[in-house]
Amino acid sequence: MAENIDVAQAAEAGPGQGSVLDHLLMRDEEGQLRREFVEEIARAIHAADRPLLCEVVAELHEADLGDLIAALEPEDRVTLVEITGTDFDFSALNEVDDAVREEILEELEPETVAEGVRELESDDAVQLLQGLDEEDQEEILEKLPPPERVAIERVLLYPENSAGRRMQTEFIAVPPDWTVGQAIDYMRDTPDLPDRFYEIYAVDSEQHWQGAVSLDTLLRARRPVPLVDLIEEDRRRVSVLDDQEEVARMFGKYNLVAAPVVDTTNRLVGVITIDDVVDVIEEEADEDLKALGGVTSDEELSDNVWTIARGRFNWLLVNLATAFLASSVLGLFEGQLEKMVALAVLAPIVASQGGNAATQTMTVAVRALATRELGSNNAFRVVMREAMVGLVNGLAFAVITGVAAVAWFKIPGLGVVIGLAIICNLVAGALGGILIPMVLERVRADPAVASGTFVTTITDVVGFFSFLGIATLWFGLK
Amino acid sequence: MAENIDVAQAAEAGPGQGSVLDHLLMRDEEGQLRREFVEEIARAIHAADRPLLCEVVAELHEADLGDLIAALEPEDRVTLVEITGTDFDFSALNEVDDAVREEILEELEPETVAEGVRELESDDAVQLLQGLDEEDQEEILEKLPPPERVAIERVLLYPENSAGRRMQTEFIAVPPDWTVGQAIDYMRDTPDLPDRFYEIYAVDSEQHWQGAVSLDTLLRARRPVPLVDLIEEDRRRVSVLDDQEEVARMFGKYNLVAAPVVDTTNRLVGVITIDDVVDVIEEEADEDLKALGGVTSDEELSDNVWTIARGRFNWLLVNLATAFLASSVLGLFEGQLEKMVALAVLAPIVASQGGNAATQTMTVAVRALATRELGSNNAFRVVMREAMVGLVNGLAFAVITGVAAVAWFKIPGLGVVIGLAIICNLVAGALGGILIPMVLERVRADPAVASGTFVTTITDVVGFFSFLGIATLWFGLK
Repeated sequence: MAENIDVAQAAEAGPGQGSVLDHLLMRDEEGQLRREFVEEIARAIHAADRPLLCEVVAELHEADLGDLIAALEPEDRVTLVEITGTDFDFSALNEVDDAVREEILEELEPETVAEGVRELESDDAVQLLQGLDEEDQEEILEKLPPPERVAIERVLLYPENSAGRRMQTEFIAVPPDWTVGQAIDYMRDTPDLPDRFYEIYAVDSEQHWQGAVSLDTLLRARRPVPLVDLIEEDRRRVSVLDDQEEVARMFGKYNLVAAPVVDTTNRLVGVITIDDVVDVIEEEADEDLKALGGVTSDEELSDNVWTIARGRFNWLLVNLATAFLASSVLGLFEGQLEKMVALAVLAPIVASQGGNAATQTMTVAVRALATRELGSNNAFRVVMREAMVGLVNGLAFAVITGVAAVAWFKIPGLGVVIGLAIICNLVAGALGGILIPMVLERVRADPAVASGTFVTTITDVVGFFSFLGIATLWFGLK
Repeated sequence: MAENIDVAQAAEAGPGQGSVLDHLLMRDEEGQLRREFVEEIARAIHAADRPLLCEVVAELHEADLGDLIAALEPEDRVTLVEITGTDFDFSALNEVDDAVREEILEELEPETVAEGVRELESDDAVQLLQGLDEEDQEEILEKLPPPERVAIERVLLYPENSAGRRMQTEFIAVPPDWTVGQAIDYMRDTPDLPDRFYEIYAVDSEQHWQGAVSLDTLLRARRPVPLVDLIEEDRRRVSVLDDQEEVARMFGKYNLVAAPVVDTTNRLVGVITIDDVVDVIEEEADEDLKALGGVTSDEELSDNVWTIARGRFNWLLVNLATAFLASSVLGLFEGQLEKMVALAVLAPIVASQGGNAATQTMTVAVRALATRELGSNNAFRVVMREAMVGLVNGLAFAVITGVAAVAWFKIPGLGVVIGLAIICNLVAGALGGILIPMVLERVRADPAVASGTFVTTITDVVGFFSFLGIATLWFGLK
C-alpha cells in the first residue's frame, strides 16, 4: 500500500508540464532509487547537460536530491554541484552520510561552498560545516558576509550535542504589546522571514524572552487582541546549554513543534524545531542500538572495509579478553572435565542461558534509563522484580535443562547439578543486567556502550564456575 | 544544566497567584517526581479535597498529570479521576503504561469515561479506547453522541499500525477558491477548531484533497490572494492504509509537521501530526531494541513478575534449544575432548568471538533495513563488504588468539588450529549476520526479532565444528 503511494508521489514530484521527472521515474516500488534514473543523471553529468541538471536539482526535494547524490559515483557528485552552481540546494548535502558530505565539501572551491551556505538557515549551515576540520571551516566562513559568519561562528562555539548547536538563529520576535493585527502585518511586510516557522515570540526591548504564541492561536484571534493575552503561560523553553537528548525528551513529552532557546540571561537567541528533534531522536535510537550490538555509533553504511574493521576491532578485543577470562574458569576445572566430558559439553549451555536472560534484563534497563522511566524512585522495586524474574525463569529452566541433560548423558546427578547452576546463573544475570547499567548511568558512563561486556562476562564466569563447582562437590570429582 | 531548567519550569508550571503548585515543588533535580509531592496529592485524595485536586489537574500539563497518576497507588488513581470529574483531562491517561490505563478505565463508570472521551480529539480518544476489550469499548461508545461515536468507530476499523488508526479526524478544510482573507475570517469565526493545527487543506465540494497551505505561508500572504496560489505542489499525502512506520519515515525524510490522510478515492479523511509520528518513531526504536535483546515489545516497566517472566520465557526456550544444538556438536567430539582437554577450555572462545562479530554485523543490517538504507540496489556491495570485514578481523584475531592459546597450553599446533577456526567463524558470522536479516526481511518477517537466534546458532555450530574438526585433523585425534 505504502509502495503505491510512493510511486504515485515520485511521479508527481515534478508536476510542471514537460518536466524531465515526468518521463524519468525516480523510484521503484520498494521506494529505492531506480538504477536507470541514476544512470540517466550520470550521463547528463558526463555530457555537462546544464539545463537538464538544473531542472532536476530544482524540482527534487532536498531529501531526494540527497539520495541521488549518495547513489552517484564520488567524482560525479562534485561535478553535479559545480555544473548546477547556485541552483544546487546545499541542504541536500545534510541528507547524505558524513563521510560523503565531507568528501564533497573538501573537493569543492571554498567560494562555491560559501555561496551555497549563504542560502541556508543557520542550523543547516552549522550541520553542513561542523564535520569539517577547522582550517576548511575557516576558509569557507571568511567568504561569508559578516552577519552570517558571526551567527554561524557563535553557534559553533556551543558544545556538540547542546541545544545551542542544534538551534536556528532565524525566528520572529515582536514586542508583547503588539496586537494580532500588527503581528500579521509585520509578517506580510517582512521579506526575509524564516523558511518555516510555527510560532512567534514576544521579547522585551533587550531581547528577553516573554512568551510564545503559536500560529494557530494567532489565527483564531481577532486583529485588536494584544499578543500578551495569547501567550501560553506554561510554555517550556530551552537553555542553550541543555543537552539535545534532554530537549528531545521535552518535545516528545509535551508534544512541541518548536521551542525558544534562551541564553543564561533569558535572552532569546534561537529556536529549535521538531525536524531537528526528530533527527536527534533517530540518532539517539541509532546510537543505543549500535552500542548494544558492539558497533561504534559513527559507523556508516558507506564506510569502507578498513574503517569498519578497525571500528569493530576494539569491541572484539574486549570480548576476547573476557572470553579468555571465562575460559580460565574452565581451565581451573581441567581435571574434572577430563574425568566427565559431559561437563565440557554442557557448560556452554549454562553460560548461554544466563547470558541471554541477562541481555533481556539489560536491554530493558538501558531503554528505561534512556527514557528516564527508571530512576532513583523506582530503582529498588525494579531491581527486586528483575531478581524475581531471574529466579522464576531460573526454576523453569532448571527443570527443563536438568531433564534434558539426564536424558542425553544418562548420569542421574547431572540434572540436579545443571539445574542448580542454571538457577544461580539466571539470578546472577538478572542482577548484573539491571545493576550494571544503573551503576554506569550513575557514574555518567553510557550504559548502552559498556553494559554488554560486563554482563556477559558475569554470566560466563558465574555459569562455568557454578556448574563445575557444584559438579565437583556433587560427584566428588577432584 | 538541563536540570536547572526543569526545576525552574516545574516551579513555573503553576504561575497563578496562590496556586498549590507554587508551594509544592513537583520534580527534583533529576526531573523525577518528588515523593513529597506525590504524598501530598495522595493525602488530598484520601481527604477528598476536591478544590485542591481540581486545581492541580487543571494546572498540570497532561504529560505531568500522567506521571503523577503513574506514581499514585492503583486505588488512588481511580479516586482522583472520580473526584475531579469533568476537570480531569483524559488525554493524561494516554501518557501512562497500557496496563495502568486499562486498569483505570475498567474501574471507572462507562459514563465517566464517555464524558472524558467527548473532550478529546479523535486520535486521543482512539488511543485511549483501543486497548480495551470490545465489550468495554462498546459500553463506552454507546454513551457518546452519534457523530463522535461514528467517527471513533470508523477509525477503529482501520488496521492497527495503519495511518488511519493514528490520524485525527478534526482538521480544517476549505474550498480552494477561497482567499487568504476568507480563510482567516473562517478561523476567527469558527468556535470548535481542532485544538492544534499547522496547516489548512483545500478540498473540492466532494471532499477530494486539492492541496495544503501551511499556516506560515498563509500569514505571509495578503488577504486577497487565493489559496490556490499558495498550495505547495509537491506536498506529500498519506493513504489511510499506509503503515505507520512508512508514514514516520516520510515525515522524517521530508521534515513534515502534519500530513493529510486520504482514502482510496482521494477524499480527505484525517490528518496525522508530528506528535503522533514522534510516538511512532519512539515505539519502533523501542521495538527494534527490545527485539534484538530478546524482549517482547509490549513488556512495560509497570508489569508484574509473572507477566514479565512469561514474556521472556519463550525467547529463552528458543535459546535453550539452539544451545543444545550447539552442544551436540561438542558431543560429536567427546573422544577428542577427553584426549585434549584444552580443546574444551578454548572452544567457547571461538564461538564467542564469532557470535560477537556476527552480532555487530546483524545490528548494522537490522538498522539499515529499518531505515531503508539497505535495499536491493546496494545489497551485493554490503554483503561483500561484511564478508571482507569478517575476513580482516578474522585474520587479526586468528593471530592474537593463536599466540595466546599457545602461551597458555604450550601445545604448538593449537595456535594454528584455533586461528583457522576463528577465521572460519568470523567469516561465517559476517555472512550470517548480513544474509539472515536480509532473507527475513524478504519473507516479510521482522529481522530484529528473529535474526539473533539464527545468527548465534550459526556461530556456535560453525565455531565448535571448525575448531574441533580442524583439531581432529591436525593432531590426528580420533
